Amino acid sequence: MSGDAIGVGLIGLGTIGTGVAKVLDGNASVISQRLGFSLRLVRVADLDTKTDRGIDLSGVQFDDDTAGLIADPKVDIVVELIGGYETARRFTLEAIAAGKHVVTANKALLAKHGKEIFEAAAKRGVDVAFEASVGGGIPILRSMREGLAANRIESLHGIMNGTTNYMLTEMESTGEAFEIVLKRAQDLGYAEADPTFDVDGIDAAHKLTLLVAMAYGAELTDDDIPTEGIRGLAPLDFEAAEKFGYRIKLLGIAKRREGPNGEERIEARVHPTMIPRESLLANVDGAMNAIAVHGDAVGPTLFYGAGAGEMPTASAVVADLMEVAREIRRGSAGRVAPLSYMPDHLERKPLVPPGEVHARCYLVFSAADEPGVLGQIASILGENGISIQSVIQQPLEPGARTVPVVVLTHPALEELVRSALAEIDQLSEVLAPTRLVRIEEDL
Amino acid sequence: MSGDAIGVGLIGLGTIGTGVAKVLDGNASVISQRLGFSLRLVRVADLDTKTDRGIDLSGVQFDDDTAGLIADPKVDIVVELIGGYETARRFTLEAIAAGKHVVTANKALLAKHGKEIFEAAAKRGVDVAFEASVGGGIPILRSMREGLAANRIESLHGIMNGTTNYMLTEMESTGEAFEIVLKRAQDLGYAEADPTFDVDGIDAAHKLTLLVAMAYGAELTDDDIPTEGIRGLAPLDFEAAEKFGYRIKLLGIAKRREGPNGEERIEARVHPTMIPRESLLANVDGAMNAIAVHGDAVGPTLFYGAGAGEMPTASAVVADLMEVAREIRRGSAGRVAPLSYMPDHLERKPLVPPGEVHARCYLVFSAADEPGVLGQIASILGENGISIQSVIQQPLEPGARTVPVVVLTHPALEELVRSALAEIDQLSEVLAPTRLVRIEEDL
Repeated sequence: MSGDAIGVGLIGLGTIGTGVAKVLDGNASVISQRLGFSLRLVRVADLDTKTDRGIDLSGVQFDDDTAGLIADPKVDIVVELIGGYETARRFTLEAIAAGKHVVTANKALLAKHGKEIFEAAAKRGVDVAFEASVGGGIPILRSMREGLAANRIESLHGIMNGTTNYMLTEMESTGEAFEIVLKRAQDLGYAEADPTFDVDGIDAAHKLTLLVAMAYGAELTDDDIPTEGIRGLAPLDFEAAEKFGYRIKLLGIAKRREGPNGEERIEARVHPTMIPRESLLANVDGAMNAIAVHGDAVGPTLFYGAGAGEMPTASAVVADLMEVAREIRRGSAGRVAPLSYMPDHLERKPLVPPGEVHARCYLVFSAADEPGVLGQIASILGENGISIQSVIQQPLEPGARTVPVVVLTHPALEELVRSALAEIDQLSEVLAPTRLVRIEEDL
Repeated sequence: MSGDAIGVGLIGLGTIGTGVAKVLDGNASVISQRLGFSLRLVRVADLDTKTDRGIDLSGVQFDDDTAGLIADPKVDIVVELIGGYETARRFTLEAIAAGKHVVTANKALLAKHGKEIFEAAAKRGVDVAFEASVGGGIPILRSMREGLAANRIESLHGIMNGTTNYMLTEMESTGEAFEIVLKRAQDLGYAEADPTFDVDGIDAAHKLTLLVAMAYGAELTDDDIPTEGIRGLAPLDFEAAEKFGYRIKLLGIAKRREGPNGEERIEARVHPTMIPRESLLANVDGAMNAIAVHGDAVGPTLFYGAGAGEMPTASAVVADLMEVAREIRRGSAGRVAPLSYMPDHLERKPLVPPGEVHARCYLVFSAADEPGVLGQIASILGENGISIQSVIQQPLEPGARTVPVVVLTHPALEELVRSALAEIDQLSEVLAPTRLVRIEEDL
């Protein structure tokens, strides 16, 4: 099989776009040896046509004319790499309307507007591929959609944000506070000037919506997912985690659970989590990502790699370009349902209310240095049916007014824990809100 | 999209075949929600039609008539799960000749006869899918072929045999000898009565031939791959590995290297390997498998899961059935080259001779308990240009005639190490052949 090249048009020549151009050029021979034909970058659109990206674009039309790119008959596949919501949505829908296939790395776009985009693509008979939007270079979406397609997914636990994983690794190894490590991550280019999307877990929640759709056919947006970031963590938490045999990771978690009448319900949440030190997931350090998926037939699996960055993300974008190019050649667009389930089997599914999560908890109370406080805390926990596994009472630091009391509970229903904490936080001897980190054991 | 079911015929109702029947039945709803149509097991052939496998085969024709199954117009896809070389080859070629697509888990078959089978399938326009043949339930072949398709593969390191990984994990944790652990693995059903294929690395070499083809377009058979199993390892090696910061795993290794004139050469080998304790691969324990793949764009990745067993292997077989069923529906058989490279880009590629492997080595000399032996050994190593990083001289065990001398070298060319060992093993003070375990650092 051979023939003319498939034409690629690239909207957005930032870091990832530059990486895509590099891979298409540098690995052109291996790509065509695998495809039986070539992928050619024919056109690039970016508002900034001046900056030198250190790549050779001779033979490529490069201007700021996005509409022209989308309409160009030489362009078979449009790559959307501008990020953000509204403009990306418009370009994507325009490309689909023009009968172009789309490859994107934009999880924010798909978490908010996925339904609209996938429906438009199905109607127009074009593919929308988005491997790069979750886990960077890790082929996790392909693996969920095809490799594990015969499984009911029991659970998934993912480190899906490299910025926060870098920060947590640093906080653990240096003992430094959140703000210091955030500053360093910003200086190194791992975190943005406004780090909200990363450190507050929003980026991970975007990605989790896509994985939950693929795992369970559940149509969610990130607004449906209880999300907590890493701002509240303190050096003490990392020390305590080590003592208890855990490490702290910001995880996106999804589980299949049964409702009171046997109906399928989905548990989905993003929060810092203590996980057993000896698990593979706990040993994923720095800016790397990994997603542990448990299927009913396959059992536990894990997929590991770089979750972001110019070349890893470009690896996933170009893999998508190769797949879409094959579908174009074979006239098989729409061969696989993009969210793993056929559209008529995607639906809003009931979520498990956060209060019904059942987990061991790590709690840090800010207690006044007075006798009897620990007893009061323990009594309130006990009255709420929460049993304590261990307590560590830290020494009073010079100049401090409070003593951190660290408690590890046995597995408990979150609504009971919440109600106990509400009561405890009203004690006059408890001087700041109690910190809670959930624990996941089965990893 | 919906319509009639795609019919599956299963040859071989052993452990894996039974698992495939279970997954097709138990997960039928999730499978059809993903496909948009059903997969139906219509026929099973096995010599043993009597044994109760604990599955419901009502509505399925079950007999020992393989030829009838292959010829049956209700069968669209033939699943070959009998294992072995010759009979499996014949059934597979007969199925292809009859225009049936084939799904197989048989790495031995493909390592020996892959070229003939893939050529026949391409000529007849049918698919041969074989995800279950490497890494059990891990979607590693799909990931190499599609997920990482935009990459030049720099290296891969795989724990690809669950039996030996279980045994190595046991030998390390109990300090027991090979024979004792082998006996236990046999009692537990992890190892077969004749364990040769597993413990001598042959099974791993079969799998490595497939991965090397997909990574480099290199046509090899397992006879081309220098292969060493785990029989030679002793409890001392695990203790020493721990002291040096390593763990011992049986790895299949492949690397892209440049020849003296800049031409691409492939390094491929199977042997017990010491790898850094803190690497993810070193933490893959028991019967689990994992393959670490390093691509030039994506960087390091790792794929982890159960490498064998009824349900994990069935997970991969049914994933292949779903993919092939989609290709049948879309008329897109042959969409992806089975070995990742188009057939005209598969070729025998020059291998790096084993002597040119450059690695740190762990050596155990069986020295007579006499003064001066260590000096002689060190001199011979030095004369061959091999420098020593550490030496551990073990105490003389009561009743033993030799003292094990453990040496860790700096990275050295294997042909120099071999020539030094030949010289050393002729010393009258060295009473048994020296043991060598290679070390891989970049993991």
